[in-house]
Amino acid sequence: MQRYFVAKEQMTEQQVQIIGDDVKHILRVMRMDVGDEIICSDNDSRTVRCCISSKADNEIIADILEKLRPDTELPVQVTIAQGLPKGDKLELIVQKGTELGASGFLPYVAVRSIVKWDQKKASKKLERLGKIAKEAAEQSYRERIPVIHNICSLAQLKKELSSYDTVILAYEETAKSREQAQLGKALTALSSGGSILIIIGPEGGITEDEFKQLTEAGAIACGFGPRILRTETASLYALSAISYHFELMR
Amino acid sequence: MQRYFVAKEQMTEQQVQIIGDDVKHILRVMRMDVGDEIICSDNDSRTVRCCISSKADNEIIADILEKLRPDTELPVQVTIAQGLPKGDKLELIVQKGTELGASGFLPYVAVRSIVKWDQKKASKKLERLGKIAKEAAEQSYRERIPVIHNICSLAQLKKELSSYDTVILAYEETAKSREQAQLGKALTALSSGGSILIIIGPEGGITEDEFKQLTEAGAIACGFGPRILRTETASLYALSAISYHFELMR
Repeated sequence: MQRYFVAKEQMTEQQVQIIGDDVKHILRVMRMDVGDEIICSDNDSRTVRCCISSKADNEIIADILEKLRPDTELPVQVTIAQGLPKGDKLELIVQKGTELGASGFLPYVAVRSIVKWDQKKASKKLERLGKIAKEAAEQSYRERIPVIHNICSLAQLKKELSSYDTVILAYEETAKSREQAQLGKALTALSSGGSILIIIGPEGGITEDEFKQLTEAGAIACGFGPRILRTETASLYALSAISYHFELMR
Repeated sequence: MQRYFVAKEQMTEQQVQIIGDDVKHILRVMRMDVGDEIICSDNDSRTVRCCISSKADNEIIADILEKLRPDTELPVQVTIAQGLPKGDKLELIVQKGTELGASGFLPYVAVRSIVKWDQKKASKKLERLGKIAKEAAEQSYRERIPVIHNICSLAQLKKELSSYDTVILAYEETAKSREQAQLGKALTALSSGGSILIIIGPEGGITEDEFKQLTEAGAIACGFGPRILRTETASLYALSAISYHFELMR
């Protein structure tokens, strides 16, 4: 069944109001009508199955039939701090990372980041990433849309570290030198409900200086297997491993 | 250091001969010269560091300096049987799947596969996928290039099942119904050196009939976490989980 996110104030006890682009999607793309059923989430704790009861060009009203419990959120909160990569790789990272359960994405400017985002480009990019996250969250039946944080510097990123229970730094040299057990150890030490920040470098990885600064600030350097992963693959590996560890290894 | 695969017969005890597109890559893209070092693998068991000793437009000779032991292959052989997906998704699956350690890819025509490959298109596509696998294997420091198998039917796929130690069928309904522990159980039962076939449906998943046929032929239906993954994300999840299980959980 098709799924849509709505704002909290658009969901009352009995009804859901759908406005904006989703109206077009429901009527023109999905060609749905009065009587058809959809699933709506308020991006917090309510997910409901409901039935379209009225339609107009700019508004759809749906009556709530039952409360659902998708229970599709990861038991730990995972934020991906991604060194700004080239091209549209960040879009792939946000789309796939949302499917795999990430709670948030935090792009940062690393020394080896080649792309530059000025103010105008940044706000356009962040808006587009937010849209990709919403669509991927609907498609993958998430209960919450991941947060797209503002782009930040390494200094700002370092200040964020203390607000997470565990900070993991993806480090290629660690992979090469066979320090493989760190990720397993870090996940085993974390309890359900905890928060993890995963820091990933851009193409070419992080510099020795960035490594020093981040590990001194508390990040644990972890290899993600012995193969060299592209920057856009590292977060997908981490999220899949976290899902396997917390959701499937029971 | 830049890495290249060469055919077995191009690597003697003392020297490596590089021919074809890689000559262009070494001379024009990387702008390397006599005296520069590269890493070469024979796609079997030999990986060497070597130094370019002579160059011509169609051939480079490099002297072997030392034998390396990258040890970057997964301890289990994983083949991805992918229901033919739309667009260029198979290219993403092969590129990322190679980085994540897959041994082979086996595209099959599922009931819900929309794309059709005729003979001509298939040979062109398979050639392109082989090139992507080679480049991704070089980039990720693999010792072997994954095999791209010919496209097959479900009937042919079913016949292949008995040649693997374990066959896993990614099944969305299983994910929804919370049968989460199957993948963990299946991997725990498999020993190092074993072979796994992971069967993934196309967009829209596999049909009830395909499910019945494949599970009756021995495939174990497994959920890959409670979220609904797009077809191109499922193999990346499975490979990451397998790497985490066999390489990092020690």
